[in-house]
Amino acid sequence: MGYRVAVVGATGAVGQEMIRQLERSVLPIDELIPMASARSAGKTVEFRGQAVVVREATPEAFAGVDLALFSAGGSTSRALAREAVRRGAIVVDNSSAFRMEPDVPLVVPEVNAEALAEHKGLIANPNCSTIQMVVALHPLRVRYGIKRVIVSTYQAVSGAGARATAALREESGKWLAGEGYVPEALPVASLPVKYPIADNVIPQIDRFEPNGFTFEEMKMVRETQKIFGDPSIEVAATCVRVPVTVGHSEAVTVEFERPPASLEEVVDALRAAKGVVVWDDPTAQRYPTPMLVRGERDVYVGRIRRDLVRENVLHLWIVADNLVKGAAWNAVEIAETLEARGLLGRA
Amino acid sequence: MGYRVAVVGATGAVGQEMIRQLERSVLPIDELIPMASARSAGKTVEFRGQAVVVREATPEAFAGVDLALFSAGGSTSRALAREAVRRGAIVVDNSSAFRMEPDVPLVVPEVNAEALAEHKGLIANPNCSTIQMVVALHPLRVRYGIKRVIVSTYQAVSGAGARATAALREESGKWLAGEGYVPEALPVASLPVKYPIADNVIPQIDRFEPNGFTFEEMKMVRETQKIFGDPSIEVAATCVRVPVTVGHSEAVTVEFERPPASLEEVVDALRAAKGVVVWDDPTAQRYPTPMLVRGERDVYVGRIRRDLVRENVLHLWIVADNLVKGAAWNAVEIAETLEARGLLGRA
Repeated sequence: MGYRVAVVGATGAVGQEMIRQLERSVLPIDELIPMASARSAGKTVEFRGQAVVVREATPEAFAGVDLALFSAGGSTSRALAREAVRRGAIVVDNSSAFRMEPDVPLVVPEVNAEALAEHKGLIANPNCSTIQMVVALHPLRVRYGIKRVIVSTYQAVSGAGARATAALREESGKWLAGEGYVPEALPVASLPVKYPIADNVIPQIDRFEPNGFTFEEMKMVRETQKIFGDPSIEVAATCVRVPVTVGHSEAVTVEFERPPASLEEVVDALRAAKGVVVWDDPTAQRYPTPMLVRGERDVYVGRIRRDLVRENVLHLWIVADNLVKGAAWNAVEIAETLEARGLLGRA
Repeated sequence: MGYRVAVVGATGAVGQEMIRQLERSVLPIDELIPMASARSAGKTVEFRGQAVVVREATPEAFAGVDLALFSAGGSTSRALAREAVRRGAIVVDNSSAFRMEPDVPLVVPEVNAEALAEHKGLIANPNCSTIQMVVALHPLRVRYGIKRVIVSTYQAVSGAGARATAALREESGKWLAGEGYVPEALPVASLPVKYPIADNVIPQIDRFEPNGFTFEEMKMVRETQKIFGDPSIEVAATCVRVPVTVGHSEAVTVEFERPPASLEEVVDALRAAKGVVVWDDPTAQRYPTPMLVRGERDVYVGRIRRDLVRENVLHLWIVADNLVKGAAWNAVEIAETLEARGLLGRA
């Protein structure tokens, strides 16, 4: 009666977290099938106390798979996701390969679960920084309408993969020891110029587009518009890597169509929203930080304050675990939502 | 013919940097007089290759002093700055004690040197995050007028003093070793709640005001308005501490009265501005980071891009050494400007 669930990229940082989230999931799982590149095939991963051997991800490996969660990069997704769908699997893809395709729902269950109804086997998981922002903005958008969002991010290195996380630790050790080193991991492993991340911040995540924004910044623009189903929402992002292993933070300024009646009303709306936790008490110095939210599925909001001048503008501080809500949990939550709506069974 | 120059708080992080900047200064200096609290009196500091004994800062110690640079915190400034002026010294104060007083010029020489003409012996050095922002915005304000600024900061721990810098190193060592620890330095040493800064970011700098903004955020509002001489400029700030020892970064969105004709015009205006260096070449992954600007007197600007929708809006990334341009060099530059304008000699 349970599902056969594949995790593609099972040995990566997000793949590992997907397996942890599947262990905690209400989905009935008969078999977990970890997959990875030929290089990682043969390794084992642990699922519910058992070691499971990682298989090579090939088109044929998806025969009999009901659900496949992909997190092995865009090229793997482009090569294999549609192959998996062709063999009857429903795919939730964490890469950016299909997010903007018109026939692929881009889903954050707290925000636009209804988009799942039209899926054609392939569903895209949004970018980590987009997910946490739209979860926090959704309850406010419903009430006040959103004209414009300006966001500056403080993004953890784990968003760039396990290698970048290892680099932060290695560089930090050398920085403390006063030893020189050649940075190798960030901002983008495949681009020529590298900068240290220990004792530094880097205002580049992903490649630059011709308009001067990075691809990460443009993801926040385009994905927010698609998830909210409103291409008129203005989004301006500056995405910055900080020396933090896990947990993305965002300083967000939001301009509404209609001014909130009071800050209390805003806080109440956030508190009532699924997937949102409000930690906001200046007198107690209470606000979220990346370290405080690690391992949590929710999105944490603090520093909620009205603009000093404009009554339709608010400022917020939004923090979430980028590997959990920003990737693995959102993907598993999509699968749980499909199941709850009868959309996961094979045709 | 030279001046007798006191540095109050000479053993602190900014005081030490003030002495370095005075060593490089064109000011004729006959004697450097390092001062500090009774606790630090008797220590020695180095000036131009000579060890100089630190004196206790008392009202009487300022007899015969021509110029006193204060960086020993607000309470020392409140206790001693006017005493020094009374004894004939001109004081440049780096604390927030006098910045908003109407008869005290608040000066960034590249922006409002003309305010020095009205000084009454006491001149205030602005907050570090304000200085670098107004230096970069000034040439744009002159051309286009500024309606509104939205800024998110990435501030180094050295802004909170030598103790916070030591804490980042100690915490980082324990984080790498997997050892637990009790954070003791940040966000504010004198407030009850502390958070780790290693592997974390903290969205609080200084105390909270009743409006939900921190004092640091309100400094950026009020000081920007005073330096630009325009209380109608809207500023909204989110100030965040990041695990970086030296170098503040700022993601700035600026809304002009009149749209720039082109991005080239903006870049040319910034390149021509005193104290500004443009590092902005996305194809070469060129932009400033805190590590790249350490020890530099200039303010570095990169990631210059037009808003995707609004032609009167720009986005910028502004980085400077918070101890140098954000504190010590700005103070020494004020003194050099006073001297050049014949405003430093005793009456």
